[in-house]
Amino acid sequence: MRMRGRFITLEGGEAVGKSTNVGFVVSWLEAQGIEVVKTREPGGTPRAEAIRTLLLDPDPREALDVDAELLLVFAARAQHLAKVIRPALESGKWVVCDRFTDATFAYQGGGRGIDWQRISELERFVQRGLTPDLTLLLDMAPEAARERLASRLMARNERLDRFEQEQAAFFADVRRGYLTRAHEAPERFAIVDATPSLDVVQARLAAVLAERVGSWR
Amino acid sequence: MRMRGRFITLEGGEAVGKSTNVGFVVSWLEAQGIEVVKTREPGGTPRAEAIRTLLLDPDPREALDVDAELLLVFAARAQHLAKVIRPALESGKWVVCDRFTDATFAYQGGGRGIDWQRISELERFVQRGLTPDLTLLLDMAPEAARERLASRLMARNERLDRFEQEQAAFFADVRRGYLTRAHEAPERFAIVDATPSLDVVQARLAAVLAERVGSWR
Repeated sequence: MRMRGRFITLEGGEAVGKSTNVGFVVSWLEAQGIEVVKTREPGGTPRAEAIRTLLLDPDPREALDVDAELLLVFAARAQHLAKVIRPALESGKWVVCDRFTDATFAYQGGGRGIDWQRISELERFVQRGLTPDLTLLLDMAPEAARERLASRLMARNERLDRFEQEQAAFFADVRRGYLTRAHEAPERFAIVDATPSLDVVQARLAAVLAERVGSWR
Repeated sequence: MRMRGRFITLEGGEAVGKSTNVGFVVSWLEAQGIEVVKTREPGGTPRAEAIRTLLLDPDPREALDVDAELLLVFAARAQHLAKVIRPALESGKWVVCDRFTDATFAYQGGGRGIDWQRISELERFVQRGLTPDLTLLLDMAPEAARERLASRLMARNERLDRFEQEQAAFFADVRRGYLTRAHEAPERFAIVDATPSLDVVQARLAAVLAERVGSWR
């Protein structure tokens, strides 16, 4: 019988370099001869994408209720788990996922103030005990993230407008959400400081992977 | 302060005359001077309808996962509760709803075999203690319902095809689902035999309404 694969998630707020580092993690694992499925949330399957479209639809006729939003987020996740994540893990492949349930806690819980306990209920309902084996949290002070975002925009001749500046408090809340989750499951999380240069961040990611992957074998 | 309105649901399988009798119940209540909001599930609001469309989409690329389906059903219900049912009840209006959560138990639970306990979990999550004050269950033996369906189709020069005939077991399971729910909450349910002529059924509905509405005043 083949061994179940490992489930690794990458988490973090805006501008922490998440997409780049998802690619790095996948390459690092593949270099060890591990077969990896790279996926992302929200989305990851055609039907989950359709649910995502519905979540983002700014229908002017009525606002989306908070419970309805949360149930849609977890409906998309159930579909993603059933069609992509569980089958891959069961066939022995590893899964690297760009954002997962911790992002729901950080954005909907920390950022938007939705009751933490209610998110937990749906987490248990949908995941039925399946949690990531390792979550790499790319962490950065909100001010540093905003600075990085601003210089990115400047490079494209855009600038941080008033709306984006007002998001500062939201960024801080999202970060606090992530750190609360890490505090609740310290054995699962590895917090990596995303402030230094990419080389330094990736050296740290490689060190974490080497240690964890070694301990699993 | 205005009193909270009453919440009445009508339930039943195919061909039991549900739509006709929803209209009868609304008229009966209005004749008593009660302000009534008539609504239905699945649907009832633009966003809930959009979720329903997604539920019915026969996307050939992938099947809809059972958990995802259940979460979508309850996402639509959360939206319906938030935007239609709760505001109406809180403003003192009564709500008459064509199908509600009992239909999820009957169709998804009884008919399709989805775990009863998991439906209960989402019921609690979404309804937060709000249940109908009265549920009128139009009950009919599956054979009688199929016969009625067949004669309706004959009147339109159509006929029961093989697919519809195979549904017999499904109809029986749905009925069993409804009766199980009624057994679990006998004080809430009134089971009305839908087999006799419409006059007889409506006389019985009027009797139930007179008794219940009287007891609430």
